[in-house]
Amino acid sequence: MMTPISKNSFLEKIKPSVRALTPYALKHVDATVKLDMNENPLDTPQPIKDAVIERLCSRRWTRYPELVPQVLLKKLSKFSAWPVEGLIVGNGSNEVLKTILLAVAGPGVRVLVSQPSFSVYQHLVKISGAEYREVLLTPDLGFDVKAICRETRNADLTIVCVPNNPTGNTLEPDVIRDILRSTSGLVIIDEAYHEFSGTTAFELLKDFPNLILLRTFSKAMAMAGLRIGYLIGDPAIVAELAKTKLPYNLNFVSIAAAEAGLDHIHLLQANVRRIINLRMALEARLKEVMGVETFHSGANFILFRTPLPAPVLFESLYAQSVLIRDVSKAPLLDRCLRVTVGTEEENALFVAALEKSLRQGVTKHTTWGEPDPHIL
Amino acid sequence: MMTPISKNSFLEKIKPSVRALTPYALKHVDATVKLDMNENPLDTPQPIKDAVIERLCSRRWTRYPELVPQVLLKKLSKFSAWPVEGLIVGNGSNEVLKTILLAVAGPGVRVLVSQPSFSVYQHLVKISGAEYREVLLTPDLGFDVKAICRETRNADLTIVCVPNNPTGNTLEPDVIRDILRSTSGLVIIDEAYHEFSGTTAFELLKDFPNLILLRTFSKAMAMAGLRIGYLIGDPAIVAELAKTKLPYNLNFVSIAAAEAGLDHIHLLQANVRRIINLRMALEARLKEVMGVETFHSGANFILFRTPLPAPVLFESLYAQSVLIRDVSKAPLLDRCLRVTVGTEEENALFVAALEKSLRQGVTKHTTWGEPDPHIL
Repeated sequence: MMTPISKNSFLEKIKPSVRALTPYALKHVDATVKLDMNENPLDTPQPIKDAVIERLCSRRWTRYPELVPQVLLKKLSKFSAWPVEGLIVGNGSNEVLKTILLAVAGPGVRVLVSQPSFSVYQHLVKISGAEYREVLLTPDLGFDVKAICRETRNADLTIVCVPNNPTGNTLEPDVIRDILRSTSGLVIIDEAYHEFSGTTAFELLKDFPNLILLRTFSKAMAMAGLRIGYLIGDPAIVAELAKTKLPYNLNFVSIAAAEAGLDHIHLLQANVRRIINLRMALEARLKEVMGVETFHSGANFILFRTPLPAPVLFESLYAQSVLIRDVSKAPLLDRCLRVTVGTEEENALFVAALEKSLRQGVTKHTTWGEPDPHIL
Repeated sequence: MMTPISKNSFLEKIKPSVRALTPYALKHVDATVKLDMNENPLDTPQPIKDAVIERLCSRRWTRYPELVPQVLLKKLSKFSAWPVEGLIVGNGSNEVLKTILLAVAGPGVRVLVSQPSFSVYQHLVKISGAEYREVLLTPDLGFDVKAICRETRNADLTIVCVPNNPTGNTLEPDVIRDILRSTSGLVIIDEAYHEFSGTTAFELLKDFPNLILLRTFSKAMAMAGLRIGYLIGDPAIVAELAKTKLPYNLNFVSIAAAEAGLDHIHLLQANVRRIINLRMALEARLKEVMGVETFHSGANFILFRTPLPAPVLFESLYAQSVLIRDVSKAPLLDRCLRVTVGTEEENALFVAALEKSLRQGVTKHTTWGEPDPHIL
């Protein structure tokens, strides 16, 4: 009989890089005014829902989805003015990013990320075992283009989120061109929020086969619940990246939803214009709130700083059933929180709660004997 | 100005192990009698569909799915008699397998697979950069347990599909125990088809923290179109594996479908009993077909061998709009094809087409001047 093997010896079969990770977790998940996840505040238009439900009623669920979703890819190709061979669709842009990293990143590979940004980049790079490097934003929360251009020379892969989450800052295509010119590696521009900024690096694709655009249906396309994302890239590169994609990765409902979204794109685009107006109104309103510093955003959220410690403000808002995101643990983002642009009503409730919290916060904060010279 | 960089230099950023892969592809994808993908021939019961459509109508699509699908996990925990902490759900068992490999496999890691089996194992192991090793089935297409027990000693991870795809052979829990005792590595038993065999390695989970069971909703659960799979394992191991899972990996429709499937499990189980009966009838019928050798199956498909070259028979059946799977390129499976158990009508159409093809095949084959002594 063999000696019994302890559980710990099996745990050692998990890569150290994975064991070292903290699981992705969220403490608070729901509230009356839920503005924490950059979701689209305007529900998916009914014609899109009708088309999807029609597909659910007419198709056998027992059948696998299409191995290659040809109809969706053709619609996406037409929509994005890019050949089918240069597209990969997946379960949210996260899965598409994971696919790219699986094909590119590993021990000995250097991945550069502009930070602070979307936390999943760092998480996935660390899982891959690649060497993770970062360039910080400038103190005023713009991209440090000079540093990115310098560091990208030594990177096999560079990831920049434009507009950036959670800061909302954007980057003009001309500047992205400078980055692309500076590297012999691949460059991912995550355009999850690009529809809210009106800018895209799309025009650079023709000249730079190392450019990969990451897109999502979770924000402007109003379908975070369906998990759909895609990439746009050079067909020769995409053919290789696609090998690490699982067959049948997108289920038939998500395929139907993505098709319907593209069929009714004008409805979604009208909602994007409404959200941009809501953002401008919210930004203007926030500027009026005493002690609040806002950062200009090209996305569907706004980063702002207050005199209070962010966790204190976060909990105070949450006590009023307003849920936003405390991002203050990230470098440079001391006392910063991110609020998603909601409906007119949600934004008003948020601002009212914020004003109440800031008033209370002064008192509480003073009571605790931690006076902050920044508190107005 | 920088020297222009050729596209090839960017291609070199893709790992050689990925560039060396052939993309997963299928030449034929549809037919009147479609018995090529081990799909459930009985459509998803209506109460399940109704519950999912109800969720689609009542829930905002713009909201992300639950970070952790608590309700589904609780139902799955009750159904599988295993704690929530020992479960991971994903987009089909493929994604769950990819998650395990991402956490475990990489350069220097040895992964052992019993072959011939499901092709995705080898594909994913090769992407990971791990050292891929295999043990072949015995000549009569049973598991070579002695060889597996010997080789698994040096493996960090061992993958065995039980019942095996595409051969249908099963393995008793007592024998799986021998494998588990022989290794200090992790062992994945892919139970994609276990409901059709009535056996499971579940009882071994308590004694062997290195055992991971892979399950799917694509076969017995009649939801291949929705892409749902899960694993059952030791909670301490699962906690580490879960770190490589993407947040929000399962969309809200798949979550709703999985919940509804578990709520109406008796309907699905009744269909499984019907499919087992259909399999037994088909196996008996195939045995009557002259020249056909069948292999006993514990799954929802049957492997068989005929005197004809499998590609010839495949095309001949396809010309009659009957689509099955030619698996003859795999080791040991010369002249073998795999047919999914269909409805009574589909099975009858398949057998009729097979008999016709075999009659024609004899003529054609003789005409080509390639007489085969096996042809009756």
